[in-house]
Amino acid sequence: MTIKFEAQQEIAPNAEATLDNVRHPQYGRFLEEYVPGQVFVHPRGYTFTQAQIDNFSRTFMQCNPLHLDLEYAKVHGFDGIPASSQMVFNVILSLGVQNDSEKVIANLGYYDAQFLAPVYAGDTIRAMTKVIDRKERGADKPGIATIRTLGVNQNDKVVLQYERKLMVAYRGDRLPTTPLPKGESPEFPWQDDASVALPNGLAIALRNVPASVTGWNTYAEDFSAGDIVVHNNGRTITEEHFALTYQVGNTHPLHYDQVFSQSLSGKMSGNPIVYGGLVFAWLEGLASRDITENTVWELGFTEGYHTQPAIAGDTVSSLSRILKVEDAPAELSDVASIITIQFIGVKNLTAAAALEKHGTDLFIKENNKKALGKEKITDKIFEIERRLIIKKRQA
Amino acid sequence: MTIKFEAQQEIAPNAEATLDNVRHPQYGRFLEEYVPGQVFVHPRGYTFTQAQIDNFSRTFMQCNPLHLDLEYAKVHGFDGIPASSQMVFNVILSLGVQNDSEKVIANLGYYDAQFLAPVYAGDTIRAMTKVIDRKERGADKPGIATIRTLGVNQNDKVVLQYERKLMVAYRGDRLPTTPLPKGESPEFPWQDDASVALPNGLAIALRNVPASVTGWNTYAEDFSAGDIVVHNNGRTITEEHFALTYQVGNTHPLHYDQVFSQSLSGKMSGNPIVYGGLVFAWLEGLASRDITENTVWELGFTEGYHTQPAIAGDTVSSLSRILKVEDAPAELSDVASIITIQFIGVKNLTAAAALEKHGTDLFIKENNKKALGKEKITDKIFEIERRLIIKKRQA
Amino acid sequence: MTIKFEAQQEIAPNAEATLDNVRHPQYGRFLEEYVPGQVFVHPRGYTFTQAQIDNFSRTFMQCNPLHLDLEYAKVHGFDGIPASSQMVFNVILSLGVQNDSEKVIANLGYYDAQFLAPVYAGDTIRAMTKVIDRKERGADKPGIATIRTLGVNQNDKVVLQYERKLMVAYRGDRLPTTPLPKGESPEFPWQDDASVALPNGLAIALRNVPASVTGWNTYAEDFSAGDIVVHNNGRTITEEHFALTYQVGNTHPLHYDQVFSQSLSGKMSGNPIVYGGLVFAWLEGLASRDITENTVWELGFTEGYHTQPAIAGDTVSSLSRILKVEDAPAELSDVASIITIQFIGVKNLTAAAALEKHGTDLFIKENNKKALGKEKITDKIFEIERRLIIKKRQA
Repeated sequence: MTIKFEAQQEIAPNAEATLDNVRHPQYGRFLEEYVPGQVFVHPRGYTFTQAQIDNFSRTFMQCNPLHLDLEYAKVHGFDGIPASSQMVFNVILSLGVQNDSEKVIANLGYYDAQFLAPVYAGDTIRAMTKVIDRKERGADKPGIATIRTLGVNQNDKVVLQYERKLMVAYRGDRLPTTPLPKGESPEFPWQDDASVALPNGLAIALRNVPASVTGWNTYAEDFSAGDIVVHNNGRTITEEHFALTYQVGNTHPLHYDQVFSQSLSGKMSGNPIVYGGLVFAWLEGLASRDITENTVWELGFTEGYHTQPAIAGDTVSSLSRILKVEDAPAELSDVASIITIQFIGVKNLTAAAALEKHGTDLFIKENNKKALGKEKITDKIFEIERRLIIKKRQA
Repeated sequence: MTIKFEAQQEIAPNAEATLDNVRHPQYGRFLEEYVPGQVFVHPRGYTFTQAQIDNFSRTFMQCNPLHLDLEYAKVHGFDGIPASSQMVFNVILSLGVQNDSEKVIANLGYYDAQFLAPVYAGDTIRAMTKVIDRKERGADKPGIATIRTLGVNQNDKVVLQYERKLMVAYRGDRLPTTPLPKGESPEFPWQDDASVALPNGLAIALRNVPASVTGWNTYAEDFSAGDIVVHNNGRTITEEHFALTYQVGNTHPLHYDQVFSQSLSGKMSGNPIVYGGLVFAWLEGLASRDITENTVWELGFTEGYHTQPAIAGDTVSSLSRILKVEDAPAELSDVASIITIQFIGVKNLTAAAALEKHGTDLFIKENNKKALGKEKITDKIFEIERRLIIKKRQA
Repeated sequence: MTIKFEAQQEIAPNAEATLDNVRHPQYGRFLEEYVPGQVFVHPRGYTFTQAQIDNFSRTFMQCNPLHLDLEYAKVHGFDGIPASSQMVFNVILSLGVQNDSEKVIANLGYYDAQFLAPVYAGDTIRAMTKVIDRKERGADKPGIATIRTLGVNQNDKVVLQYERKLMVAYRGDRLPTTPLPKGESPEFPWQDDASVALPNGLAIALRNVPASVTGWNTYAEDFSAGDIVVHNNGRTITEEHFALTYQVGNTHPLHYDQVFSQSLSGKMSGNPIVYGGLVFAWLEGLASRDITENTVWELGFTEGYHTQPAIAGDTVSSLSRILKVEDAPAELSDVASIITIQFIGVKNLTAAAALEKHGTDLFIKENNKKALGKEKITDKIFEIERRLIIKKRQA
């Protein structure tokens, strides 16, 4: 279709500006705007490209070859290199920010995250959120919203679902944000008793994986409940995080707008804060060659808390504590185990120094410290429980 | 073809160096080297990859799903995700820098830019420039060169053409730069009365676009002449801009070579200046969810001026003023409007604060300020008029 | 394969942590752990993507259109855009870091690097290393290990092989690092008298390359032994290098972990050091439009030394000295020459200023300075000899 348009002529100098119709579009929601039961379909979708999948893995220092080496992925029965669970989580959470959390004061926690199907290059993921609960604490005080978010691919398959709690400001006299479209709420396909779609050939493939390019000491048999694995290297986060925030689709100005950050008061004021999903991804990458290199699927995680913010210049490191090792179910039972790991992030000291300084207190949830008469650990930036399917060693 | 080469042997220690044949290749041109009528074919072509298209959109915070979501692009009749107009402009301008402007003191303005066909992954774009005019102002004073540049794809289709004015130093006694190859000037396929090649199915597609992933309040009907839209978020530019300059192919050391920047005097001295095309792209991205989210084509822009430089650490924000809303021609008339927008960039204050501080003076061209007895606004970094095809809301 | 897993339950608060089983996985090797004759297969492979190939070329300012322009690559008989030699070298060296050099104090030199086949998007490269020699200098003194590394593609074709010398710390009483798997050493397919696999159509293609997008003054005939070419632009390296280290797969914390860097003493302490392979790549990119723009193959390099480290904020520039120009062998003889170049990098002054300041001393190897009674040049950061196949000008 070829169309001729009139040549563009300059207009502005002859069109006097007035301030009669000024508008300031606002996104996110204030506390009163979270209505339990309401469902948001988030703007924009995210087409995963081979480039973004690969770039995410390398930026966040992933060492599991499943996300780096096509030949390895194919030998394990995957259709191509799957996006890492960290990438899938970052993108789906970010797609929701414009509606869910662009007015949010703090992300309080991640719960019950479940990865339900692989995401490959070419897949387009869209996200939706349902408001589960809203707790007010009086006018002008921030309250707590509980939401569930899920991501679906172009074939309407749910690939990830999770719950989070948000601390949200009371709107009070401020102008309302951009309202939702009117009409019926769309269906929200959260699965209460979800199954995971793994590659068909995975169990057979795991019996026949040839001598390989992973370490020989990160198989399921190498881990026992009670083990603590100290991950040696740290990563100094640079201002790269400003751009990475938008790379995964997160629109919150707290992460890239210095003028906004300086307008805040309290813990979040000053320099842009690193988006928590990125912090989690770096911590995981730093741990990956010690602990998740032979992982074939991340089932999910829960009780995830960013206990301190990170900014550009901070160096982050991580530790893993093995909580449970059990056989995988069904046809995976003799080729893989399910391993549950408590995963801890610290900043600006090595993981070894953190363990020496704080001992086993590192593994007590910060929210439980007060009840136990313990001090909070300000070196600690993150805590979560992860559950993974890890290969057994084959003869 | 398998060839055996002799083994490499070290040579240098036995080959004494002399200074008899030293050369310093120079690129760009000085004022006297711009000859009206002359045509340059620029070195190198640029193969657009899906990765670069996607990465550009995400780096510059694009919110129009046409550039992010493959399913959305296909539903609109596009063959794949098209490169954003900002990317096409940045690449074609940059391809010309080595010849056109690597010796240039300042880019004075962009005029009459017209996007004539989509660019997709796999397309290879090459650029050429014709010198239109040269204004000297006496020996040793910089003069003004007017040039036209266009980008053609591998099928010889012009995808973008525009004019710019450059402030160029007088060569005087300095050595001439790398000369052009001898021989006839190539043909320069500038189109005076250009048509735009849009996807064949676009008009029908726009009648049938399903409930979608754009905001519901950024359709053509939501804009009227006189509206001012203040874009809420800013973006702090980091030193990432050094690398981004070369990502789009721009070779001017002003943007990435601190030693060069410190050798300069005046406004451009000190830290590397952000390449203006990148500034425009960020400003546009920040505006996109408020104003261009439902755009299906950018027709072009004119009267574009970078009125202040930006450096790493600066935070940029933008405002849009609607100048004109008219029906699109031909088969697009009932599904889309042509909207002309005056687009303004500011730095180191929010767009809202800039509007409060400067009022409607923000919308007076800086070059006209003196004649009107107005002060220039140093908070303002950019001004341009853009013309876009934006979807009408379908029942 | 669809599997139902039990819902994840929080475990940590009821599983008291103990310090009974703490481990600190360590990688790399200490001097005693290098055993001549031993072969390591390095963990992980690296699947080259079109995106990474393109991104590397643009990040490091490559101007040879072979790595930027698909139409140009195809006209020259290549199957697609080949990865630049710099990228192939960076990736293969990096794949070896976890075993070879993550405990290394310094990389002493590169020798006898030979590029033996193109690497394209979709190729997966794995690397292996053989220990050639180990020189001890007494307990607690660092010694020197000589290793050979090679990269093979998914069809078992060697694409690059090279030798390097490493300065390695004596292990002494420290804990041993992660041991190698037991069992027979794998075969190590180093080729002593290697042939290069070039595209079949290359010789014919070079006779018929149409008017093109390279400069007209960088053909083989434009270079003579004794020429010195001063490359005009520098590149200020930013903290981008932290992330680029892992983009190419290098795991050494010296390059991205500020806490680690600050724990060191001596020349390497303080800010993270730029991984030398990246420095080489930037220097080469800065030279490329003056000297390697019409290169069709890099045969290899030898005697490469990083004579000073670079950190974020440093600006690097380069110079080339032509050492030898000879006809290419076999069917390439009338279409291309083999050109050997001494290639020098400097920091924080222009290449022109370095030549003015140091004259021909710039071209004396730093290791030879003492014997010649010369001072070392601390402005100089890199020296190497490169050997390239460069097109002759066709009528």
